[in-house]
Amino acid sequence: MQVGAPATDKGQKSRRELMAIAIDCFARFGFQGSSVDRIARMAGVTKGAIYYHFRDKEDLLAAAVADRIEEFEARVQRACEGADPLQALRSIAEVCADHAISNDRPRFIITLMVEAIETNEEISTQLRDMMRRFRAFVRNWIKQGQEAGTIRGDRDARSVAAGYVSWILGAEIQLYQDPEHFDFRSALSVFLDQLTADLGANVTRAEDPRTRAGRRTEEGADKAP
Amino acid sequence: MQVGAPATDKGQKSRRELMAIAIDCFARFGFQGSSVDRIARMAGVTKGAIYYHFRDKEDLLAAAVADRIEEFEARVQRACEGADPLQALRSIAEVCADHAISNDRPRFIITLMVEAIETNEEISTQLRDMMRRFRAFVRNWIKQGQEAGTIRGDRDARSVAAGYVSWILGAEIQLYQDPEHFDFRSALSVFLDQLTADLGANVTRAEDPRTRAGRRTEEGADKAP
Repeated sequence: MQVGAPATDKGQKSRRELMAIAIDCFARFGFQGSSVDRIARMAGVTKGAIYYHFRDKEDLLAAAVADRIEEFEARVQRACEGADPLQALRSIAEVCADHAISNDRPRFIITLMVEAIETNEEISTQLRDMMRRFRAFVRNWIKQGQEAGTIRGDRDARSVAAGYVSWILGAEIQLYQDPEHFDFRSALSVFLDQLTADLGANVTRAEDPRTRAGRRTEEGADKAP
Repeated sequence: MQVGAPATDKGQKSRRELMAIAIDCFARFGFQGSSVDRIARMAGVTKGAIYYHFRDKEDLLAAAVADRIEEFEARVQRACEGADPLQALRSIAEVCADHAISNDRPRFIITLMVEAIETNEEISTQLRDMMRRFRAFVRNWIKQGQEAGTIRGDRDARSVAAGYVSWILGAEIQLYQDPEHFDFRSALSVFLDQLTADLGANVTRAEDPRTRAGRRTEEGADKAP
């Protein structure tokens, strides 16, 4: 689904509007606290209007979650286009930081992720799979760097990826919990310095210039191993 | 409150039992989904029995949260007794891992932490303050190591501590979300190797044994600005 696509179909537009309102409702009242009744009231429509588009509350939330996941994954992937592995690891984290700092929507996903673990199997599965894909995506960048010789080969890529995603998730929660005291930007900057120093250490083989041939990143700061 | 203390006062014992049941209820149904009615039913008591000990649901949950926080902080502090700073950073993380892997209670706190951000000011404040103390505790260990010359001085202690706590929080959530695919132990081991390699690098001065003499580690948490 494309955010900027023209809404030629009135039914589709309403569906998207209802998803946006459901997200706001959920973000304020949690999953248990968001009834179809409450969402309908917030949207200024009848419950019937919601049931026209969605089977039930779970279906509505699952659709909203799928939409958010899709948008997030597209942003992360765009940020990495043409990057080398260490630069990609920086870019992914920076996209997550921008996302977390700039609006309330990520908070919805994070809250739901934690709350749904016990309470909603379908949504929990969606979010669990998103996190698996996220870890795999990071892991693949690390493996690419290891194969290219720009990331040390003696770090287990799976564990580094798991830790990288842990860092981002835990930092987002602390930012939401304590925006005045938790300095996400400073912490992120130090984390990325630590990570790239560690992964770039003990590299035995300089990157083959031919490997870089097709790349389009020209940000000089991050080229050093 | 001490877990092993003899229950000489029947009223106090009931109070503790009700808190334990409230925690289980909350862990299963979330904050919004845990009414006094439901907690009373799970406990096999009347609502009146709950109101004898607690003003309302918020009061009961706040007491249960305070109890969990106290136990967690005592465990973390015990684990650091007599440790040097880098060892303390390992020990704190290992306590958190044991805590997360061995039982369901930490999940209650993590779920509540995220859910309460928007929905319950009192509990949200308790948990926010716990996280502030946790970050300050870690930060103080890093500063002690920097002063003793065993941790590099060019890393901002506040940012490193923020990242350390982020890692633990995010890893716990992923463990709860996906226990079969998220290998907490392996990820932790690599994280601690990366962290201690980074913090121990560029150290110019060996630790002075006299610096260790007067330490009283248990008071560290609240002294930081």
